[in-house]
Amino acid sequence: MGTRLGQLVERLGGQLVGDPNLEVTGIAPLADAGVSDISFLSNSKLRAQAGASGAAAMIVSPLDDAFVAETYRGARIVSNNPYVYFARAAQFFAALDEVAPAPGIDPSASVAANARVDPSAHVGAHVTIEDGAVIGAGAVIDAGCFIGRGAVIGELTHLFANATFHARCQIGKRGIIHSGAVIGTDGFGFANEGGVYIKIPQTGRVMIGDDVDIGANTCIDRGALADTIIEDGVKLDNQIQIGHNCRIGAHTAMAGCVGVAGSATIGKYCTFGGAAMVLGHLTIADKVHISSGSMVSRSILEPGQYTGFYPLAKNAEWEKTAAIVRNLAAMREKIRALEKTIKTLTEPTKPTEKI
Amino acid sequence: MGTRLGQLVERLGGQLVGDPNLEVTGIAPLADAGVSDISFLSNSKLRAQAGASGAAAMIVSPLDDAFVAETYRGARIVSNNPYVYFARAAQFFAALDEVAPAPGIDPSASVAANARVDPSAHVGAHVTIEDGAVIGAGAVIDAGCFIGRGAVIGELTHLFANATFHARCQIGKRGIIHSGAVIGTDGFGFANEGGVYIKIPQTGRVMIGDDVDIGANTCIDRGALADTIIEDGVKLDNQIQIGHNCRIGAHTAMAGCVGVAGSATIGKYCTFGGAAMVLGHLTIADKVHISSGSMVSRSILEPGQYTGFYPLAKNAEWEKTAAIVRNLAAMREKIRALEKTIKTLTEPTKPTEKI
Amino acid sequence: MGTRLGQLVERLGGQLVGDPNLEVTGIAPLADAGVSDISFLSNSKLRAQAGASGAAAMIVSPLDDAFVAETYRGARIVSNNPYVYFARAAQFFAALDEVAPAPGIDPSASVAANARVDPSAHVGAHVTIEDGAVIGAGAVIDAGCFIGRGAVIGELTHLFANATFHARCQIGKRGIIHSGAVIGTDGFGFANEGGVYIKIPQTGRVMIGDDVDIGANTCIDRGALADTIIEDGVKLDNQIQIGHNCRIGAHTAMAGCVGVAGSATIGKYCTFGGAAMVLGHLTIADKVHISSGSMVSRSILEPGQYTGFYPLAKNAEWEKTAAIVRNLAAMREKIRALEKTIKTLTEPTKPTEKI
Repeated sequence: MGTRLGQLVERLGGQLVGDPNLEVTGIAPLADAGVSDISFLSNSKLRAQAGASGAAAMIVSPLDDAFVAETYRGARIVSNNPYVYFARAAQFFAALDEVAPAPGIDPSASVAANARVDPSAHVGAHVTIEDGAVIGAGAVIDAGCFIGRGAVIGELTHLFANATFHARCQIGKRGIIHSGAVIGTDGFGFANEGGVYIKIPQTGRVMIGDDVDIGANTCIDRGALADTIIEDGVKLDNQIQIGHNCRIGAHTAMAGCVGVAGSATIGKYCTFGGAAMVLGHLTIADKVHISSGSMVSRSILEPGQYTGFYPLAKNAEWEKTAAIVRNLAAMREKIRALEKTIKTLTEPTKPTEKI
Repeated sequence: MGTRLGQLVERLGGQLVGDPNLEVTGIAPLADAGVSDISFLSNSKLRAQAGASGAAAMIVSPLDDAFVAETYRGARIVSNNPYVYFARAAQFFAALDEVAPAPGIDPSASVAANARVDPSAHVGAHVTIEDGAVIGAGAVIDAGCFIGRGAVIGELTHLFANATFHARCQIGKRGIIHSGAVIGTDGFGFANEGGVYIKIPQTGRVMIGDDVDIGANTCIDRGALADTIIEDGVKLDNQIQIGHNCRIGAHTAMAGCVGVAGSATIGKYCTFGGAAMVLGHLTIADKVHISSGSMVSRSILEPGQYTGFYPLAKNAEWEKTAAIVRNLAAMREKIRALEKTIKTLTEPTKPTEKI
Repeated sequence: MGTRLGQLVERLGGQLVGDPNLEVTGIAPLADAGVSDISFLSNSKLRAQAGASGAAAMIVSPLDDAFVAETYRGARIVSNNPYVYFARAAQFFAALDEVAPAPGIDPSASVAANARVDPSAHVGAHVTIEDGAVIGAGAVIDAGCFIGRGAVIGELTHLFANATFHARCQIGKRGIIHSGAVIGTDGFGFANEGGVYIKIPQTGRVMIGDDVDIGANTCIDRGALADTIIEDGVKLDNQIQIGHNCRIGAHTAMAGCVGVAGSATIGKYCTFGGAAMVLGHLTIADKVHISSGSMVSRSILEPGQYTGFYPLAKNAEWEKTAAIVRNLAAMREKIRALEKTIKTLTEPTKPTEKI
């Protein structure tokens, strides 16, 4: 299956330079693309490679188009953001290959009598849907998922196999929850009485907006009393932990293994590199970017890129420098002593000593 | 649903100052509490806010009571530890709302003929319980859980949906295992023969005490030959990894994303901040507190708070200081050279040179 | 159940010194072994303890044999690598105890009509196997697992309960996938258009070689366009995250909580300590060893041991040294100033100043 270039441009926009009847069947990187593929040039530094590409057509920016046109013989689709165009074209081709899950409820699923499952939704094998849960139009609940009492799954949202979505939590439209993710588990809240922990019931919910993606084996805790909030367009990768009562601002993205402790408030349009950690009760402004492996131990009120990880070294060097790091206070003392001595040496002799 | 204040105090203790017939239906923080809520003052610094709270009743300590009584018009429950009282009151209200799962086995569950499930236990949809497993009185095994051969689940212990509890492992009374947790998976044990790994069978168990909570997607490895031990009252948050043959002492708590390598022995009443990591074969004393994001690379034999993470900075500053960290040995050499030079400058000239 | 020593040596090799008819039923460490156990001496430093062991037989290296023979009265099995011999013997004893899962498909499983399940394979309760999937001879698919469309599970590979193996991915022979692992979830790929993320479909696969072990709750992303590759003999512990389009070289081992960002290429025979992190698009040579808790932020082209984590300290000391780390640039300036001053003091006075 494939499409003609003219049809693609009609659907996705861009200016076609070439034969609209040319058939293309997929999308591939510059070096790998074959005669029935589209490719894309999203980085001007690579434009010298475009000429050598075997792609039938190339998505290029207006800035690169003249350069590419000189060496590249295939068709061109000129678009202001070739990488976004690539994403949309890839979605188009993927949809052609996709087997749409059939509407209806698999006979092996356990669906409570008073749950409301839209007739256009798909509910797979061994799914459990409890009392009062609502599954929206076109939603897909794959095999082995659990949907708790009163939970709400929005239109066109897709839960992959073995995801768990607990009672009373909600997710909006066009969301994706990947396998093994757990939404709405209890937050980690205890009162301590003489060393023994007394559980504080976690009665809040997780409220998730539209167009949110949640990665495999990621956990989001329900709020203690109030709710945990994930705003529209947030993208969470795999193995992430979001504590109770956090708020993650719209269009913020977090890479794998990030941890956010409870009651952190994170702004919009932020990015978090893999394994970044955020302590509890902090506030992070909009457009803050945290590098991978960095520990955020204080609130950040200004946009910008922040980093904090120990630089890697050969182990022998690390052992040496780590020992010095441990003794930095002593090093500082030595410098202070040197400064004092030198001050004595360079100061003009005092009058009283002259006598 | 709710309760009268008199009934609450009868059940939970504390001294009531106010109308015992006042109806309350829930519990909320100072600022959010409404006319049918109880609130609590667990931090004396906030006592000025108590007067403005709309709560029907307030839990206060004896120390704060006189101060609060001056401005706050509602009823007061005086208790030595208001936060613990709050936890117990919250448990009371949560129990009123809770839908108790019906005793019995869901028809879709697969329960081995010789497994012993107490008639008062609940076994949900699509659960698998293998040969010889024992499910105690009042235990709740939610949908999609797996209980392996010969495993033992104690009285009133609750496994949330899609938890996995492997063969021969045991958990005591009143425990909680959250969704996606995996108890008793194989430890990571191999012998290396010419670069190729030969698996060492993991034949020990995981033995878990009473009142233990285990978070979502947390893993606890079974022992290699002996057992992995989790003592009474331990609280583990989500996404934690506990290696084989570890022992975690009673009433120790670990926040999300902590990792403990194999054969570590951790004392009682310890706390581990999120993403703290503990190397294998270490011993950690009782009452040790490890800060978030810290790597424990040696045994700790004295109680106290320990920390080790790289401080966060704006990326440009981090790049500068990280480069200096890498060259700390050179910096130390410079200081030594300076010390030497200054020693020469300040030493009295030697007699032989006088001639 | 057990075996006679003669039978064991016949099967596993080594030179027996002692009675071949002696019955042994298990294997245990030096200190714990009883009269029907084998033990092993894999570390010469412990050889003085061998004499006190109650084990019926001891696996020793040729180097330690003479020493052990002087004090230890039991039988000896002399082998060049006692730890590997121990692993193989432990496998032998574990197999005696193991209940082999019966071939065939549990009636509660949902298996697509055109999936091919070898008659010798075991498919447990509540398993879902989708269209066109292939389950090899002797494979074991435990309860609650999901196998997506067109996936291939090789001969003798074992998926533990509640593992998820997505469409079109493949694993070879004798593999192990532990509970909660998710293979072939979407990679984290987006194009950004004015702050909003556009999903890039992830259409590659995860291709896994023979003899690969994958830990509980570990995730491996499918490739974006090309495949994610896990070569033969790789061993991954629990809670690991492998990003899309990574390649992990043969016989590389990673401990728990490791994260590898997308498109990293990792060599053969590497080891990664727990919670080590690798940024995307890096290349790591063969035989590189990364210490626990270390962030790999650049490619590593030479074998060796590399480390990068902040050394642990008492919290009060950490606060002091972390403050100095933040100000290392200022400290460097002070040293430069001192060097300058001292240079002035020690330089011979210039002629022009003499006048």
